[in-house]
Amino acid sequence: MITIETVSLDDARRVIDAGERAAREAGQPCNIAVVDAGGNLVAHVRMDGAWIGSIDISINKAFTARAFDLSTADLADNAGPGDQFYGIDASNHGRVMIFAGGVPLRRGGRVVGAVGVSGGSGEQDSAVANAAADAL
Amino acid sequence: MITIETVSLDDARRVIDAGERAAREAGQPCNIAVVDAGGNLVAHVRMDGAWIGSIDISINKAFTARAFDLSTADLADNAGPGDQFYGIDASNHGRVMIFAGGVPLRRGGRVVGAVGVSGGSGEQDSAVANAAADAL
Amino acid sequence: MITIETVSLDDARRVIDAGERAAREAGQPCNIAVVDAGGNLVAHVRMDGAWIGSIDISINKAFTARAFDLSTADLADNAGPGDQFYGIDASNHGRVMIFAGGVPLRRGGRVVGAVGVSGGSGEQDSAVANAAADAL
Amino acid sequence: MITIETVSLDDARRVIDAGERAAREAGQPCNIAVVDAGGNLVAHVRMDGAWIGSIDISINKAFTARAFDLSTADLADNAGPGDQFYGIDASNHGRVMIFAGGVPLRRGGRVVGAVGVSGGSGEQDSAVANAAADAL
Repeated sequence: MITIETVSLDDARRVIDAGERAAREAGQPCNIAVVDAGGNLVAHVRMDGAWIGSIDISINKAFTARAFDLSTADLADNAGPGDQFYGIDASNHGRVMIFAGGVPLRRGGRVVGAVGVSGGSGEQDSAVANAAADAL
Repeated sequence: MITIETVSLDDARRVIDAGERAAREAGQPCNIAVVDAGGNLVAHVRMDGAWIGSIDISINKAFTARAFDLSTADLADNAGPGDQFYGIDASNHGRVMIFAGGVPLRRGGRVVGAVGVSGGSGEQDSAVANAAADAL
Repeated sequence: MITIETVSLDDARRVIDAGERAAREAGQPCNIAVVDAGGNLVAHVRMDGAWIGSIDISINKAFTARAFDLSTADLADNAGPGDQFYGIDASNHGRVMIFAGGVPLRRGGRVVGAVGVSGGSGEQDSAVANAAADAL
Repeated sequence: MITIETVSLDDARRVIDAGERAAREAGQPCNIAVVDAGGNLVAHVRMDGAWIGSIDISINKAFTARAFDLSTADLADNAGPGDQFYGIDASNHGRVMIFAGGVPLRRGGRVVGAVGVSGGSGEQDSAVANAAADAL
């Protein structure tokens, strides 16, 4: 038997709230999603005016960051033509996102969930996701 | 040109908060989701201990209630063998839920979104969804 | 933060081994799958001669049993025409199995994973799954 | 009539065991999957701590290596922009993996199945898959 820690709904809300603040300061409405240690959705919000196409992306960025325990920005660096993970986005039934905005949530060095942000540029999404993750 | 009213993230949160209170009083952790007038997810929460299989169901119950502007309990009454909408759950790529827990959100007689609840019996899910909808 | 227990690969192997013994005694080759507390696959075997169509079914029975913390035989009792969960098999992208053979794995009253068996009649699959689950 | 040889569950287990040993020596927990001559899953294990996103990838690397009777590393060399199989990963419903870690299992010159490994770098996955394949 293995014992693991995973985010609660309270944790997810704190992470999302911090993401919302960062998104508002950046003037960029976003979708923000948090998954638990099992990769399953805990909470999601779409800020007023954020893209509807980003609902799915935010949830899947969070999934990806937990599925591989790394940021989707880092995955992006390894998923281009000629890279070692080129083509990984064909796996997992379209749930693997290979662009910035998904960040693992860590506690004591272990991944306990992940946050995914989608709504602006890759740089903006990363900044919002990192601000969100810092609030864990 | 058409003008429509639709729920904001603030509205969705008020609805979800009311649903959570009802679920806690019933001692039944739930997934609760709100979609807007376009049927697209605005916010979702999974209460601690709620089923992971209900994430998708709560979101799709909300979609269904808005997609057809009726409660999924009412749709259930028309979707059994021999009924007029029998087989409707094969449509919309698996997003049509034909059991109780999805309720339209109305303002001034018009549907402005919907809430979907999944976590307990059909009766419990309906009760939580109705309590949530009343908070709009 | 929430702390949960989940099956290890060693646990999954012990469960699968017990299932294989029961299947051999019944003379019915089966697919046997174990998922963890997050609903994600830990291990799978297809015994020689077992149906290839049952690979997916065994994995999804295990998923379903964990997704809703109940046996798929019990879910079946609530998912027929007129029942409260009729139509639930349209959810979760075709992963919800509403016939016997998926059983939660419990430790100290909590669900720590699930086992799914597919290969014979519903009765046989249930018997094998229960024998497997008892070995946890 | 055609007679084909294909791996048994015992063969699959021997292959997986060898892969696990190689993965442990490399200090890299992996998902390891074996498919038969029909490309269908025979057995899968996820070592404790291995990525959940790699479940699907390991199974599909094995499928790919059997589907085209070549290693996925070799396929990768032909699947980049401008290459003869560029875009092949859009086929077969997302099951074609075009990066290293899938290796055919051969007996007497014929392919009798395949092994897929996912969990580390492309180089690590290949090394583990080759060690696994050697145990057939």
